[in-house]
Amino acid sequence: MRETTINVLEDVELSSPVFIEALPGIGHVGKLAADHIIDELDAVKFAELYSPSFPPQVLVDEDGIIEPMKNEFYYLKDAGEDGRDYIVLVGNTQGLSPEGQYEICGLILDFVEGYGVKEIFTLGGLATGQPVEKAGVYGAATSMELAEKLREHDVILRSADGGIIGASGLLLGMGSLRGMNGVCLMGETPGYFIDAEAARALLKVLLEMTKLDVSLEKLEERAEETRKMIMKAQQMEQEMIDRMNLKPGEEDLRYIG
Amino acid sequence: MRETTINVLEDVELSSPVFIEALPGIGHVGKLAADHIIDELDAVKFAELYSPSFPPQVLVDEDGIIEPMKNEFYYLKDAGEDGRDYIVLVGNTQGLSPEGQYEICGLILDFVEGYGVKEIFTLGGLATGQPVEKAGVYGAATSMELAEKLREHDVILRSADGGIIGASGLLLGMGSLRGMNGVCLMGETPGYFIDAEAARALLKVLLEMTKLDVSLEKLEERAEETRKMIMKAQQMEQEMIDRMNLKPGEEDLRYIG
Amino acid sequence: MRETTINVLEDVELSSPVFIEALPGIGHVGKLAADHIIDELDAVKFAELYSPSFPPQVLVDEDGIIEPMKNEFYYLKDAGEDGRDYIVLVGNTQGLSPEGQYEICGLILDFVEGYGVKEIFTLGGLATGQPVEKAGVYGAATSMELAEKLREHDVILRSADGGIIGASGLLLGMGSLRGMNGVCLMGETPGYFIDAEAARALLKVLLEMTKLDVSLEKLEERAEETRKMIMKAQQMEQEMIDRMNLKPGEEDLRYIG
Amino acid sequence: MRETTINVLEDVELSSPVFIEALPGIGHVGKLAADHIIDELDAVKFAELYSPSFPPQVLVDEDGIIEPMKNEFYYLKDAGEDGRDYIVLVGNTQGLSPEGQYEICGLILDFVEGYGVKEIFTLGGLATGQPVEKAGVYGAATSMELAEKLREHDVILRSADGGIIGASGLLLGMGSLRGMNGVCLMGETPGYFIDAEAARALLKVLLEMTKLDVSLEKLEERAEETRKMIMKAQQMEQEMIDRMNLKPGEEDLRYIG
Repeated sequence: MRETTINVLEDVELSSPVFIEALPGIGHVGKLAADHIIDELDAVKFAELYSPSFPPQVLVDEDGIIEPMKNEFYYLKDAGEDGRDYIVLVGNTQGLSPEGQYEICGLILDFVEGYGVKEIFTLGGLATGQPVEKAGVYGAATSMELAEKLREHDVILRSADGGIIGASGLLLGMGSLRGMNGVCLMGETPGYFIDAEAARALLKVLLEMTKLDVSLEKLEERAEETRKMIMKAQQMEQEMIDRMNLKPGEEDLRYIG
Repeated sequence: MRETTINVLEDVELSSPVFIEALPGIGHVGKLAADHIIDELDAVKFAELYSPSFPPQVLVDEDGIIEPMKNEFYYLKDAGEDGRDYIVLVGNTQGLSPEGQYEICGLILDFVEGYGVKEIFTLGGLATGQPVEKAGVYGAATSMELAEKLREHDVILRSADGGIIGASGLLLGMGSLRGMNGVCLMGETPGYFIDAEAARALLKVLLEMTKLDVSLEKLEERAEETRKMIMKAQQMEQEMIDRMNLKPGEEDLRYIG
Repeated sequence: MRETTINVLEDVELSSPVFIEALPGIGHVGKLAADHIIDELDAVKFAELYSPSFPPQVLVDEDGIIEPMKNEFYYLKDAGEDGRDYIVLVGNTQGLSPEGQYEICGLILDFVEGYGVKEIFTLGGLATGQPVEKAGVYGAATSMELAEKLREHDVILRSADGGIIGASGLLLGMGSLRGMNGVCLMGETPGYFIDAEAARALLKVLLEMTKLDVSLEKLEERAEETRKMIMKAQQMEQEMIDRMNLKPGEEDLRYIG
Repeated sequence: MRETTINVLEDVELSSPVFIEALPGIGHVGKLAADHIIDELDAVKFAELYSPSFPPQVLVDEDGIIEPMKNEFYYLKDAGEDGRDYIVLVGNTQGLSPEGQYEICGLILDFVEGYGVKEIFTLGGLATGQPVEKAGVYGAATSMELAEKLREHDVILRSADGGIIGASGLLLGMGSLRGMNGVCLMGETPGYFIDAEAARALLKVLLEMTKLDVSLEKLEERAEETRKMIMKAQQMEQEMIDRMNLKPGEEDLRYIG
């Protein structure tokens, strides 16, 4: 595998779908929100993306089954009050290198543009590093008109206090150069636990703006499951760190193993 | 996006233009100087450069509007006492990897060579790390003749005390291999604040050498604006650092977010 | 050399061979096990793989002879009780960058697929970081059926406690996308010495599952030899570290040497 | 510039030349030795190599003149007692990334192979990290025959105590795969100053083996010049390090400068 590739699992026709991105990031906020929409509305997976810029590893699930690093595209047809179509992008990783991130985001935009996407929502978390009393929702937009719309939904515009790193930023930046418009929504979170409250605040704004209808009842339950899954990723990373930090005098098996 | 690309916004004919580069670097000195020229002389933006070697992120301006990482080409026609044409390159970033820097600088040279550029000025700062009483201007050149000219303008030649890192160095080094000539001017600066005085010293030499006519009155004002903008970049970077340094025991959301 | 390449040394026909991978990793466990099989069963080397993503260096053997970084393919014909064919992959390194790992593993899979491989065993170590009383064998699989088979051989499934980094993980993840099935076996090891006991435990499971017949008598002897070879790699790495950490005031000869 | 390129300055016919490599490395030993041969025997520069994997910077010489990062090929015709031809490779840098090192070394081998090179000498230093009473010369070879020859010249074979990192190793490793043979000679040096004594010991062996005739009288003088040049590289690097380590609270001008 020398290039990022998308495997299409189902040919589907969509009518000017809205594109929602929620790849891994701060506080698990975006992923939690998007996974919830996918499950509650029975979204259908129709494509998978694999990239040589993903971490060179696999995950192992609770049954000992190997799961490659990947991003997944789901669709929703005729959803919500407006009866619109949606493409939702989730996954277990993002690209590691800058070049990889640009390549992957370019390919994602090529792909969703083929279905007629003109509007983008990217979801993420904004880490405060300290306890949050009531999770606010922060945002940014590709146009003044959309920024105004965010303000109407009580989203705090991130004026002069930072940028947006990773796919949530790049998809909007690169999308705007192709004439797509969109917003980034970021749930306020301490950042150091799986934050169902930040996801709830984020989802409320997203559901209002899209007129999707999703019950938020099982969100805390989902957060609990996610916490367990995350434990796995943490331990794997600790192992990787341990492997890189063998003490002097210990045998180093990185090169000759 | 897999390759660095230049979007031309306006077809313009220029006559043997002088090329001035001032991409981000030490002390904000070069950028401050070049932005000042662009504003005071109403230079016209005619092309934008995007690269997969730029940081994989976007900035957000004071209105919450997303701004991609990019370099921007401006032109000046029939400017200054000599009535010459100019291309000025500014931007909010440089390439991250060595390979990216070489690719971007090669493309920039291809592009300006197409307009007939034979002379290059690259602008930057020289960090002293301590307070500077009266900002000197340091320089280097691609030929003995130009080095002599620098000396006539009281520029201190950087003999035996270091090299030039990034686009300011590479454009001259790679340009000289194509038969372009040029100089690098570096304003002396402590390096840890937006230094209008270093930019003023630098501009004085540049204006003398090019015979451009620019009032330096509003330079301090511009420095103040820039200081605010910089705050934004700093905070964004701090967030990125925080994200990379989650303490053990905290949930790590980098891989599964 | 701009791409990973495989030099085929002998044209061989194999009948649906089983593929066993044991590139360098934690505790030398996999390599020790695979080298033992190769020597005891007189496996024949038939191809070598070289990659620009390997460390940019060579090793020097006990006679002062230079050995490039490489991976090596061996075959076994009509082996064990079942009379099956095997391809065994060993080497002195793995790729350094994520992109390199994906490229190399993709090429390895292309290559062994050409011989009809449908089943993969990847061998490695699982570092505990502390003394191990009796080395257990951990595992993961690409299907529920194979996971069940692992359980029958007393392999502990790595449920919810981590992933698999490097070629041992990637070959299974990328292989499963091509319809190959396989398992990863990991011998439990403190991780900081050449662990013949972990290799023995691993081999026992592998031999049971493949019905290969290999005496384990000389395994400790082999471990001793390996310990000596490893010393060499360690010292080389220490030199590299020393080279990178010259104290200030010392002449740094990295750029101008 | 997206690929490593070689600019040929003079078309020259050489008869089975010996290839001597001395790119920057430990203790300046190899470079000092090769520069001495080039100057004493009036070797002629006939080609330059530029690479996007070199550090993205330029050097500035004592006259304020910009010098790109590059490698340089010199030839010697009908030299020494044997009247053989030589290609000598020197420069001010090596590639930074593993992939870059492999690409550059592959291109170098393509280039010298075109002149009929079959024998390689690579020169470097072996750092002891402590004072050296009488500099020994260490070595490694691509064949048992050449290793034996090294032993006859009192070269200590580096059995079991490490490998060879960078171009001096790779050129031999990659060359041997093309049927070239060669040795690496490493002068023993504390490693933290420009070591004329190590270069002298190295040159003695090289001159004996090649039957080149070079006076070693001015070697110490040359070492002194080199020490001054190195100061420049050091200060430049210190600046780069300072730039990367701005203290918190200071303005960071890396992204927006």
